[in-house]
Amino acid sequence: MAKQKQLKLGALLHGVGGGTSMWRHPDAQPDASVNFGLYKNWIRKAEEGKFDLIFIADGLYITEKSIPHFLNRFEPITLLSALASVSRHIGLVGTLSTSYSDPFTVARQFASLDQLSGGRAGWNVVTSPLEGSALNYGRNGKTEHPEHDKRYRIATEFLEVTRGLWDSWEDDAFVRNKETGVFFDPAKLHTLNHEGEFFTVKGPLNIARSKQGQPVIFQAGASEVGKNYASKEADAVFTGHERLEDAAAFYKDVKSRAVSYGRRPDEVLIFPGISPIIGRTPEEAELKYREVASLVTIENALDYLGRFFEHHDFSQYPLDEPFPDLGDLGKNSFRSGTDKIKKDAREKGLTLREVALQAATPRGDFIGTPEQVADRIQQWFEGDAADGFMISAGVPRGLEDFVEYVVPILQERGLYRTEYESDTLRGNLGLPVPENRYTKQKALVTPT
Amino acid sequence: MAKQKQLKLGALLHGVGGGTSMWRHPDAQPDASVNFGLYKNWIRKAEEGKFDLIFIADGLYITEKSIPHFLNRFEPITLLSALASVSRHIGLVGTLSTSYSDPFTVARQFASLDQLSGGRAGWNVVTSPLEGSALNYGRNGKTEHPEHDKRYRIATEFLEVTRGLWDSWEDDAFVRNKETGVFFDPAKLHTLNHEGEFFTVKGPLNIARSKQGQPVIFQAGASEVGKNYASKEADAVFTGHERLEDAAAFYKDVKSRAVSYGRRPDEVLIFPGISPIIGRTPEEAELKYREVASLVTIENALDYLGRFFEHHDFSQYPLDEPFPDLGDLGKNSFRSGTDKIKKDAREKGLTLREVALQAATPRGDFIGTPEQVADRIQQWFEGDAADGFMISAGVPRGLEDFVEYVVPILQERGLYRTEYESDTLRGNLGLPVPENRYTKQKALVTPT
Ligand SMILES: Cc1cc2nc3c(=O)[nH]c(=O)nc-3n(C[C@H](O)[C@H](O)[C@H](O)COP(=O)(O)O)c2cc1C
Ligand SMILES: Cc1cc2nc3c(=O)[nH]c(=O)nc-3n(C[C@H](O)[C@H](O)[C@H](O)COP(=O)(O)O)c2cc1C
Repeated sequence: MAKQKQLKLGALLHGVGGGTSMWRHPDAQPDASVNFGLYKNWIRKAEEGKFDLIFIADGLYITEKSIPHFLNRFEPITLLSALASVSRHIGLVGTLSTSYSDPFTVARQFASLDQLSGGRAGWNVVTSPLEGSALNYGRNGKTEHPEHDKRYRIATEFLEVTRGLWDSWEDDAFVRNKETGVFFDPAKLHTLNHEGEFFTVKGPLNIARSKQGQPVIFQAGASEVGKNYASKEADAVFTGHERLEDAAAFYKDVKSRAVSYGRRPDEVLIFPGISPIIGRTPEEAELKYREVASLVTIENALDYLGRFFEHHDFSQYPLDEPFPDLGDLGKNSFRSGTDKIKKDAREKGLTLREVALQAATPRGDFIGTPEQVADRIQQWFEGDAADGFMISAGVPRGLEDFVEYVVPILQERGLYRTEYESDTLRGNLGLPVPENRYTKQKALVTPT
Repeated sequence: MAKQKQLKLGALLHGVGGGTSMWRHPDAQPDASVNFGLYKNWIRKAEEGKFDLIFIADGLYITEKSIPHFLNRFEPITLLSALASVSRHIGLVGTLSTSYSDPFTVARQFASLDQLSGGRAGWNVVTSPLEGSALNYGRNGKTEHPEHDKRYRIATEFLEVTRGLWDSWEDDAFVRNKETGVFFDPAKLHTLNHEGEFFTVKGPLNIARSKQGQPVIFQAGASEVGKNYASKEADAVFTGHERLEDAAAFYKDVKSRAVSYGRRPDEVLIFPGISPIIGRTPEEAELKYREVASLVTIENALDYLGRFFEHHDFSQYPLDEPFPDLGDLGKNSFRSGTDKIKKDAREKGLTLREVALQAATPRGDFIGTPEQVADRIQQWFEGDAADGFMISAGVPRGLEDFVEYVVPILQERGLYRTEYESDTLRGNLGLPVPENRYTKQKALVTPT
């Protein structure tokens, strides 16, 4: 009997949380975003739960209205590298922007993380929604935040260069023969010589590929151009959907776009992000949710909402009147997110207060007893809405509870591994090791 | 009685070595440059020897003539971060170029390493000597390697921005009061608003300072403009001198320049790099040196020399005639190094073969029994030629031998610590914690 398709799991680790107020919870450690000891405990807990990966989000611009986690947090590359040496099997996925970095450096840092961790690195390719990012990266008196679609064109060329650099050395290039003095085979070293619209990069890269060939590519945009990018380029997509129908529609959409690009549907894995809240009874879980939601003030919620709209100041509008008309605001930033907020507000006739609180205290679909949460996961998974989930802690100990109470149920149901299949991230995700492009070319021209 | 001035020690960790051929030695591990297990053993050995720091060099351009270590090595930021979580006291110093990176990213990555390691980060600020680096960092169809002195002007502004960003948050900015909901004190958050010749950077940085205030700044240039930069900006200088007289002259020069910039001489520490080779007898040590030197072929030596002169092809010249006249070649690259090579060759009437072999198999002044090496170290230290040394392994097990046989002698003589004084790098180096600039300003304007 063929083995049942297996669910994948990632843990989104984000210190004091992705919202405004979890740090105020009695059980929260309010310095969590710069507390390495805590991150170490979390990655160990996730590895105990046989998670495929941990995931670190990122951003390049703050104001004094930013949420606590964004103000003072570890940078992803350094954090993941530090975590590499205190873990063994779990994947290490970090966010890095193609709008504000150089392909040679990014290729190197991820390749190095990939080697250091024995083939466990992943890169979440983002284009940086926040306009303010440009203000931190000005050159020669100029600052420019490229507009939304141009950012994706840059991202496309950027990834092309990075992947080219990653293949600089064929897998068996390093001979290291002490007798003959031959360290490497020059026929297996390749110079990229990329000259494109945005980047000129000669290569070769000064580091070889890891056991998994190339780091896993994640993507997290959801606009039209974002979905095309994901379907064409990404190994995995991190997405945010609160309802099964929306998630299933997105899933179908991305998979069929992937097919139209000549890929197999299982070559791009879809991970909705969820924040399970678990109680011994449904009531206890509900209470836990309310406890956290109650810590959010309306001022917090307005600031939180503002960030999606280029740090727009929502305190200028009346709270209990219909959500204001913002015109194009947000289009050049978190486009897919802001479009959805505007659409929902219009269709449901929501007030500003309602929109802000909904954004800042999302309820989600995964609140209940361990069995209820496992049921819901199974429903999404079997309903073709997800290949896996990105678990984020919506309450303190959210990850611990999930690993201790929900994971065993998923394992018992045969939906989820009890041991790692592999010690690389690609291996665990069931993704193929991409063959080195030059090795492949040679195989094509050499008759066997 | 005042305690004797204490010697400082760093370990330059560089996989298969900074030369062409150590990897061929029977005891060498030829994959050392990408072998994390080895780096882990080395940092533990250095920490056992109470070293102040480990040091990772770097470069941004390779060709097939590059030495083995440069072809396939870990990237410094990722490597140091991974080593942070397997060490406790030792400083983590890495090289990063101001010519090919962004101050916001560099400030973040070093600040994050500094926080992850509990205040043990250091940055070796380099300007990238290799012209080819530009070919890996081209933008919009243009590649430019800024000329030597311009690179230092960029470096000056770059460091100014980085240090400004590091002070974004005053040390007591994070209140984290769960009752009142106040996460931080807005009066203690500072926006840099830097607008300079090369960089426009608004800030604030999205990470706070570590226990040691700011990462330690190393520098390694030795031209006129390089020495001025070091004397004015650096906490420590890594330098290469083979003879005591040269090292003492450099030492005096940099210290007096520092004084002319209004600093105390002990605010900039000088670390000559040395490669001790230790034997039970002087003859055994000499034999070890010759064994390694004999692995270097003349072709290796010419390639090695070529890199300093922008990958110049020296195989076109006769080997046993006077060193060729190269005009300005090398001036825009490793200027201080190439000036010295040309001057030596001219003054001593050396042939190309002699110059190349001298460069590729430097003999150094630190070959002998543990006592002899300790004597020489003491002589340099007490002769005002060094505040400390950067120890690099010239033979396999070079670091291990140094820690096991030389360190105890230095300790016995009272020249060197037997326990760490501190758990920050600044603490161990005896450097003050730089006060946050804004806190300082406030103290100046507030009457007490
Ligand atoms: C689930 C999810 C997670 C994201 N995580 C990040 C992140 O960590 N850093 C970031 O800069 N952008 C992040 N983004 C933003 C996207 O990368 C993208 O820039 C933004 O959604 C705008 O593109 P789009 O209109 O195609 O969605 C995320 C988006 C989604 C939907
Ligand atoms: C001891 C020493 C170590 C150095 N290490 C590095 C390094 O790791 N990476 C790098 O790009 N340059 C390195 N350099 C080069 C210098 O940073 C500098 O770019 C070069 O020496 C040219 O500047 P100068 O003419 O002022 O010396 C080093 C130089 C010296 C003397």
